[in-house]
Amino acid sequence: MIIQLRKNISDSQIEAMAAAYEGVVVNYESNVLVVTPSAIKNIDSKFDDIIEKNWVLDSDIQLSSRKFKNETRKISIGRFTSGSAQTLLTIGPCGVEGEEMMEQTAKLIVEHGLSSIRAGAFKPRTSPYSFQGMGEDGLKLLAKMREKYGLSVVTEVRDSTHVQLVLDYADVIQIGAKAMYDHGILRACGRSQKPILIKRGFGTTLQEFVQAAEFVLSGGNPNVILCERGIRTFETKSRFTLDLCGVAYLKENTNLPVILDPSHAMGYAYGVPDLARACMAMGVDGLLIEVHPNPAVAKSDASQQLNHDTFRKLFETLKPIAAAVGRTIV
Amino acid sequence: MIIQLRKNISDSQIEAMAAAYEGVVVNYESNVLVVTPSAIKNIDSKFDDIIEKNWVLDSDIQLSSRKFKNETRKISIGRFTSGSAQTLLTIGPCGVEGEEMMEQTAKLIVEHGLSSIRAGAFKPRTSPYSFQGMGEDGLKLLAKMREKYGLSVVTEVRDSTHVQLVLDYADVIQIGAKAMYDHGILRACGRSQKPILIKRGFGTTLQEFVQAAEFVLSGGNPNVILCERGIRTFETKSRFTLDLCGVAYLKENTNLPVILDPSHAMGYAYGVPDLARACMAMGVDGLLIEVHPNPAVAKSDASQQLNHDTFRKLFETLKPIAAAVGRTIV
Amino acid sequence: MIIQLRKNISDSQIEAMAAAYEGVVVNYESNVLVVTPSAIKNIDSKFDDIIEKNWVLDSDIQLSSRKFKNETRKISIGRFTSGSAQTLLTIGPCGVEGEEMMEQTAKLIVEHGLSSIRAGAFKPRTSPYSFQGMGEDGLKLLAKMREKYGLSVVTEVRDSTHVQLVLDYADVIQIGAKAMYDHGILRACGRSQKPILIKRGFGTTLQEFVQAAEFVLSGGNPNVILCERGIRTFETKSRFTLDLCGVAYLKENTNLPVILDPSHAMGYAYGVPDLARACMAMGVDGLLIEVHPNPAVAKSDASQQLNHDTFRKLFETLKPIAAAVGRTIV
Amino acid sequence: MIIQLRKNISDSQIEAMAAAYEGVVVNYESNVLVVTPSAIKNIDSKFDDIIEKNWVLDSDIQLSSRKFKNETRKISIGRFTSGSAQTLLTIGPCGVEGEEMMEQTAKLIVEHGLSSIRAGAFKPRTSPYSFQGMGEDGLKLLAKMREKYGLSVVTEVRDSTHVQLVLDYADVIQIGAKAMYDHGILRACGRSQKPILIKRGFGTTLQEFVQAAEFVLSGGNPNVILCERGIRTFETKSRFTLDLCGVAYLKENTNLPVILDPSHAMGYAYGVPDLARACMAMGVDGLLIEVHPNPAVAKSDASQQLNHDTFRKLFETLKPIAAAVGRTIV
Repeated sequence: MIIQLRKNISDSQIEAMAAAYEGVVVNYESNVLVVTPSAIKNIDSKFDDIIEKNWVLDSDIQLSSRKFKNETRKISIGRFTSGSAQTLLTIGPCGVEGEEMMEQTAKLIVEHGLSSIRAGAFKPRTSPYSFQGMGEDGLKLLAKMREKYGLSVVTEVRDSTHVQLVLDYADVIQIGAKAMYDHGILRACGRSQKPILIKRGFGTTLQEFVQAAEFVLSGGNPNVILCERGIRTFETKSRFTLDLCGVAYLKENTNLPVILDPSHAMGYAYGVPDLARACMAMGVDGLLIEVHPNPAVAKSDASQQLNHDTFRKLFETLKPIAAAVGRTIV
Repeated sequence: MIIQLRKNISDSQIEAMAAAYEGVVVNYESNVLVVTPSAIKNIDSKFDDIIEKNWVLDSDIQLSSRKFKNETRKISIGRFTSGSAQTLLTIGPCGVEGEEMMEQTAKLIVEHGLSSIRAGAFKPRTSPYSFQGMGEDGLKLLAKMREKYGLSVVTEVRDSTHVQLVLDYADVIQIGAKAMYDHGILRACGRSQKPILIKRGFGTTLQEFVQAAEFVLSGGNPNVILCERGIRTFETKSRFTLDLCGVAYLKENTNLPVILDPSHAMGYAYGVPDLARACMAMGVDGLLIEVHPNPAVAKSDASQQLNHDTFRKLFETLKPIAAAVGRTIV
Repeated sequence: MIIQLRKNISDSQIEAMAAAYEGVVVNYESNVLVVTPSAIKNIDSKFDDIIEKNWVLDSDIQLSSRKFKNETRKISIGRFTSGSAQTLLTIGPCGVEGEEMMEQTAKLIVEHGLSSIRAGAFKPRTSPYSFQGMGEDGLKLLAKMREKYGLSVVTEVRDSTHVQLVLDYADVIQIGAKAMYDHGILRACGRSQKPILIKRGFGTTLQEFVQAAEFVLSGGNPNVILCERGIRTFETKSRFTLDLCGVAYLKENTNLPVILDPSHAMGYAYGVPDLARACMAMGVDGLLIEVHPNPAVAKSDASQQLNHDTFRKLFETLKPIAAAVGRTIV
Repeated sequence: MIIQLRKNISDSQIEAMAAAYEGVVVNYESNVLVVTPSAIKNIDSKFDDIIEKNWVLDSDIQLSSRKFKNETRKISIGRFTSGSAQTLLTIGPCGVEGEEMMEQTAKLIVEHGLSSIRAGAFKPRTSPYSFQGMGEDGLKLLAKMREKYGLSVVTEVRDSTHVQLVLDYADVIQIGAKAMYDHGILRACGRSQKPILIKRGFGTTLQEFVQAAEFVLSGGNPNVILCERGIRTFETKSRFTLDLCGVAYLKENTNLPVILDPSHAMGYAYGVPDLARACMAMGVDGLLIEVHPNPAVAKSDASQQLNHDTFRKLFETLKPIAAAVGRTIV
């Protein structure tokens, strides 16, 4: 249950209310909320005079539920605002590998009138014998692109040991598919006000996915965006299976903006353009596409990154679809 | 391996060739082919003089492979031809339930300038205590709609006991997700020349899916269409998970037309319009959408069928997306 | 709902009762039952005087539910009876390939004091370019082994076109994983009284699996055995994933005997002995293990079949586990 | 490739070798190893005189491969040693909830002659509105049980923010299913010499699972144990699906001890005894079973924990199965 307290309730009263129902206190848009486990459906009448309003929810999808707040959250990333008719198209290489390729990427972005750049500095590899990312040096290169080209920076945190570093450098903090259950990261992001992009774990149900967002929201940060990037199924011809049915569910039931990542889902560049067009037609808040100046030599995800020419052609086909669903690409 | 024999090879030579490599003899566009297990990579030189040409394939995706025949198969269903710039939009209720609702459906189809009607007469229910379909009476109603409105009829065969009946009545024989491994059905369809629409089993890999098509193709029927309708994954918020990554694979690697069914994948009407738009943007040969005059009283799949008004609105949004990807809806 | 009618109710009354609730009439152990869709929870009081007793079930797991009939069904296969302290260990090759190998198999079975032989004559292959089984000739060889060695014959039906043939030859009709939704087969088996062994489809939920059994049970055949043989998951190091959690569910909730098939689940001979021991410790009614005189030359499933020596060693280790869980191997 | 260097190679030579092939330097049992990405199959002959021996592996399962080190690793936890005929049976509640219930648990353990206690102090919950664990106070209670009853303590780290705390208190550090990709945790554990128990993520392939172990092994800690606890599949009647086929793979291919957790896999107490017996029959190094003095009031995982009486009965049935597979329970 979400309980909105009246104005001017004392801290001790707030704490008493929260303690009575194991609730989490959340400062939310100039109101104080106490969010209890959803199993709680009734509040003792003795609290009546401090309660303004409440919402009984049927699961721990609470602050992110359209039943609590119906309109999609407005979250700003540079020129882009979610919950509007804009679609954020954020592109860049899987990982930051050096200055020259980041320069080439930034120029491609500017050339298309886009507003953000994405790349990872801390790579969450499954093998210790693979490229692990440039670390803080990578973050510095991303910051340089921001300064030089006016781009918003989207980059990933891998684990709690460097979450503050990423929070310091990035405009949008991406919590990767393998890190999205990490309480250390989620709680640190809840204390920030920067947009947090949570990628769905490949073995994660939609319920758990949205509950990860609840960690950040209930921590005090209302700026959470969800990113569907493919789930793991029995099919092995593609790397993962992009779950657009799940996206339909998220759009219907949550107030969180949704961004789609066809690159990681497919795992092979050949399928990305078709999927990107499908994603655009879903009418979502954004797309995330991996683009690399020379995919063949990429240090990670070589097979799935588009080269610049393919991206240019794809972009031309995305525009009329965006128009068909009433959206502009930013 | 696919081996194309020279013209005027005697039957006994053909049989010898086939026997030598456990091959299947296929009459294919005025040529005789012997298709052996793909494990066979070489043919003895003694057969050189009867062989015109051959294709070594890396798996039992053979006749359906773009390596054998690069262009997408042209299959005609009324005014529609696959492998062209047309997209078949075939709609109708889950099951034939009576004449009035079929009349209403047919009129909706005609109103939108569409060319085909779909509905099941033999329902492959998982419970014996559910509506099992109208059987031949349903087929007769479908045939009536064909005569009266000039529509092509797409309908499903459930098991081998009535496959001939369905072959007799239908213009397109749909092999359902639960029946697609059925050799009895596949072989009967291979002896026909009517278009066969094979739905992917929800637990079926793409490899097995295409191999089911190979049963029909190698049986002598070149007219096979694949239909992706969602696979079973761990996610339960939707009924199945529509596998568009798989569709990208099929488009890239096979010469079979692909039709998408967002209704069965989603399982809930609210998500079908978004998904249908995504499917249209994939640039596929067709879409199959369940539409019912009054979904609330439908005898099967009540939750996922669109009512006629919702379909009308959806159709208006599909047209510009079709245009954006260079296609016309038939 | 299952409604048991009083004795001596007239046919017309039975039909009226069934028609009123879309129920299926089942003659069950000298009683007449009407089984309605489980959604029906109440019966009009006007039927009170023809109703002896009823069971309201929460899903279409009805005749197979322990809530209807608590004890595990006693089904006899030669010397074996299910629902007792016996465990049926049925072995044999994947497919019947010839008389000599069937002889060798039968002798191995007799050597270990076992009572049944299993092998397929109709192979449900996923590729048309693979060995499809010996057909009726295979059934004849199995029948010969029965006569010569007194063994019960377990063999598979692939599709409805030959279901009567298999019903005629076999002692236990196995409905394979790819055929278990086939109404043609299920209904034909419902009209028999022979034991029907239904294998779980690899994409089949437990709910659907048991509902397949309900087709046979409600058709009038009370002798249904379930066989778990692995489901399809994201893991590819084994062929399938043996679902012993599902077996625990089936044992707790249904009155159907359960047999386990570790061979198809694992797909590799090296893992079969460990898994077979685990299956035996589950305390189930039976185990099905693929054994071939020379797996390397097997025409199907070559990788997963045990050779005779490996089986002999495995058998010695199964005996003490059977004893530990209070069972004897038959 | 794993390259074992000769004795007395200088640090600069080691670094040069590692740098040449992006290798990780590992001090391993008085040898220096350089482990390169497995894609590297050959070493330049100029390094011949510093190389003692090498192993070319076909994937990044390297230090954990039986091809590198054939025998199962001997890892000691109190009286228990892995890779022997002992099976560790570690029990306890899901979470530490207070001193009294930990006392009751410890007494149950001592009563059965067992050697270790398990419980979580940091709970990796998927909802922020659920009990999150007692934190360091929970670790202190576990340490108290160790001192008072001589038990080894197995407890979980949730994220990198408290990994050092858990390393300080625990005898075995459990990395939970949701944390097993966490580089921060894996690297910290690699710098310790304490046994690390890695639980398989529910969406994690066996390949990735073992690669997580490689992070710890290549960090310098040879004491890694794997724990299979169920994967996420389409089946929802149980919480997860215990993957014993995967266990067969791990036993065959890796030198890492394997422990099984039937409690989390099943999710319901009723199925745990049958599954525990199956796990014991697999001949693995250990079992982990959740036991709580009063499951009905447990703050987490209430449905799956056994009460003490059920555990007592289960234990009596585990002993003969252990004996049947030649093992003693510790």
